[in-house]
Amino acid sequence: MSTVEEAAGDEEKAWGEVTPEAARRLLVAAVEAFAERGYHATTTRDIASRAGMSPAALYIHYKTKEELLHRISRVGHDRALEILETAADGEGTAAERLAQAVRTFVRWHAGRYSTARIVQYELDALEPDHRAEIMALRRRSDAAVRRIIDDGVRTGEFDVPDVSGTTLAVLSLCIDVARWFRSEGPRTPDEVGELYAGLVLRMVSAQKR
Amino acid sequence: MSTVEEAAGDEEKAWGEVTPEAARRLLVAAVEAFAERGYHATTTRDIASRAGMSPAALYIHYKTKEELLHRISRVGHDRALEILETAADGEGTAAERLAQAVRTFVRWHAGRYSTARIVQYELDALEPDHRAEIMALRRRSDAAVRRIIDDGVRTGEFDVPDVSGTTLAVLSLCIDVARWFRSEGPRTPDEVGELYAGLVLRMVSAQKR
Repeated sequence: MSTVEEAAGDEEKAWGEVTPEAARRLLVAAVEAFAERGYHATTTRDIASRAGMSPAALYIHYKTKEELLHRISRVGHDRALEILETAADGEGTAAERLAQAVRTFVRWHAGRYSTARIVQYELDALEPDHRAEIMALRRRSDAAVRRIIDDGVRTGEFDVPDVSGTTLAVLSLCIDVARWFRSEGPRTPDEVGELYAGLVLRMVSAQKR
Repeated sequence: MSTVEEAAGDEEKAWGEVTPEAARRLLVAAVEAFAERGYHATTTRDIASRAGMSPAALYIHYKTKEELLHRISRVGHDRALEILETAADGEGTAAERLAQAVRTFVRWHAGRYSTARIVQYELDALEPDHRAEIMALRRRSDAAVRRIIDDGVRTGEFDVPDVSGTTLAVLSLCIDVARWFRSEGPRTPDEVGELYAGLVLRMVSAQKR
């Protein structure tokens, strides 16, 4: 249970941009509830009760449970895209940018694994319009990583026989951190990020230059 | 919907070892229901109804919903362990054995992704005794992969600065196939297995010999 509580502590800070405070409190409660029992097993009543509010008070901020999921998914995917595009469009060699993309993307999945699991596992529960919007963000995230790998292949820094397959594998490796990472485990999010950056540079056969 | 139905078709064959037929039908129904809505949102009544049986008939074979989850998890983990130990204890160089482990483990996660997701994502829903039993199987699976990597380092075939971190990453990469793989996608389970075997050999800097 302590991991859920710790994660919730991080969540409070992480959702700082959401206002008013009651709307933020409800999002944090929804992240906790979805993480513990899954989206389908959670009711809006559960979420309101966790936030110390009435169902009617929840309804002022979110009309449906799906609206809460969509909000969590949207904020999470916006952040993922920001991380990957910042790395892709940054300074440095392709190897430096790929390492930076992996480091920051892994840190996010490790540091906020409750949110990340919901973001990654509950896509099928989104309504069609929301799902389409989120899938478009995911394609842009994939494209950012692919752009770095393409750059490295073009400059001869990387040797990658299957660029789309390798892009998929790099993102998959980072995303799965949300499944296995525990804050009480032996490695910090920074350490996992560093380990994974090194492994990914091997996957693309990056040459030291 | 079609993916769930296709997966269910595979499931019927995959659980062939489970007898009598009614017990098998209930396991397949449970896999479908857990995959669609999550463990906590599924009732034993849902499972019985999917299998075209009464709750009383379900109770003859499984006393609780958790017993169904445990059975699914046990069969899945036994198979994973068999795959990885067979590869670890097989003939050939460390590189050949590691490639074989990755190929077969990936094929299982791609070919039976509904079962694999339940096996991988619902560990926290197991009762303490069952969870301990399953975690022991997982440690043996990890150890099989680690043994191959250790062998490769000892013979000089591999160059791996962090053996436990690399073992974790290799297993994680394979397991996450169950999250993103779709049978209607562009790659077959065999193709993903081949791609991943190549990427993992790069992660351990395998030298051709």
